[in-house]
Amino acid sequence: MTVFQKEFSLSPKPRGFHLVTKEILQQVPEITEIKSGIMQVFIQHTSAGLTINENADPTVREDFETFFNRTVPEDMSLYKHTYEGADDMTSHIKSSLLGSSVSLPVTNGRLNLGTWQGIYLCEHRNYGGSRKIVVTLMGN
Amino acid sequence: MTVFQKEFSLSPKPRGFHLVTKEILQQVPEITEIKSGIMQVFIQHTSAGLTINENADPTVREDFETFFNRTVPEDMSLYKHTYEGADDMTSHIKSSLLGSSVSLPVTNGRLNLGTWQGIYLCEHRNYGGSRKIVVTLMGN
Amino acid sequence: MTVFQKEFSLSPKPRGFHLVTKEILQQVPEITEIKSGIMQVFIQHTSAGLTINENADPTVREDFETFFNRTVPEDMSLYKHTYEGADDMTSHIKSSLLGSSVSLPVTNGRLNLGTWQGIYLCEHRNYGGSRKIVVTLMGN
Repeated sequence: MTVFQKEFSLSPKPRGFHLVTKEILQQVPEITEIKSGIMQVFIQHTSAGLTINENADPTVREDFETFFNRTVPEDMSLYKHTYEGADDMTSHIKSSLLGSSVSLPVTNGRLNLGTWQGIYLCEHRNYGGSRKIVVTLMGN
Repeated sequence: MTVFQKEFSLSPKPRGFHLVTKEILQQVPEITEIKSGIMQVFIQHTSAGLTINENADPTVREDFETFFNRTVPEDMSLYKHTYEGADDMTSHIKSSLLGSSVSLPVTNGRLNLGTWQGIYLCEHRNYGGSRKIVVTLMGN
Repeated sequence: MTVFQKEFSLSPKPRGFHLVTKEILQQVPEITEIKSGIMQVFIQHTSAGLTINENADPTVREDFETFFNRTVPEDMSLYKHTYEGADDMTSHIKSSLLGSSVSLPVTNGRLNLGTWQGIYLCEHRNYGGSRKIVVTLMGN
């Protein structure tokens, strides 16, 4: 049984949804040693999230930003926790709607995703900076 | 340590929410070999999802469809990514709101769910076809 | 490879969002034996959920309650599954929006969370009672 774990930071991204599959995989070449197992990707923040979605057309990521801004409005009269601005509490809510981790199958040394799947960093803050990630690989 | 992994397809389902616990467990009889561990169920698509919810009353699944259609409206003026119709971008959004995988405890060779819990396939497309699944079982 | 699993109940909580990181960790002192791995926390209910969010300011938890009540309205005319009252179907929906489990990295015998992260019990029912949890620890 192999367990491999690594902590690293993603480069800072502007607010929005960003495809980060390659940036994550570059950090864990040890994935090639796992024939069958899982990869957990965890983000150590409460104002950004991770999700799996379409890896080709950038308008999907734009439409995500539109939808989540519409569904979680930056109306400060709705929230108490707004010390850091209108994008403070809304970022916490979005991070729980989308989730703090993704868990993916690993097969024959590679992520076993569908053809159109990729990992998104969901950056909800206007100025989020670099984001810390913990990847855990487990398998045989 | 046992790691067991299997890829298979679920039979095609109409748009809506479907209880698939039995259809999944039929594919992985090896679960009986795991005394203590986890089962990850991953869907290799970005327009369908997986979630855990009530396994008895079918009106729960109907109400899910009602709620998600109301919350993620099929109004093509809201989205750019609508090449495949009004259910295209909304399906991507719903799949990230509900998630691409579920991770469940396994105890004494069985899923250790609550009495009322089952696994839902969340089919967001009008004509989604069969959906590919990867199950990973890990434990002792 | 270590696999450790424990079932227990959380003390009953009023409707709302509650920080339960300590209450969970008290149940699994075996976490100190894991140098590198993951902890899965699973809730055996379909009307309550688990998520990761801000562990300091209680107004974040209040704003979560406000947001989810606004987004999943207790309007019984919208739903069929309302046998147990206006908080019945809405609790099922909220539990799938937020999720039934959280999966966290474990490093050097401790949860490897960000500074501001904690585990929330999301109690969606008016009178939910105690909630059953299954924790699975896996790693080396």
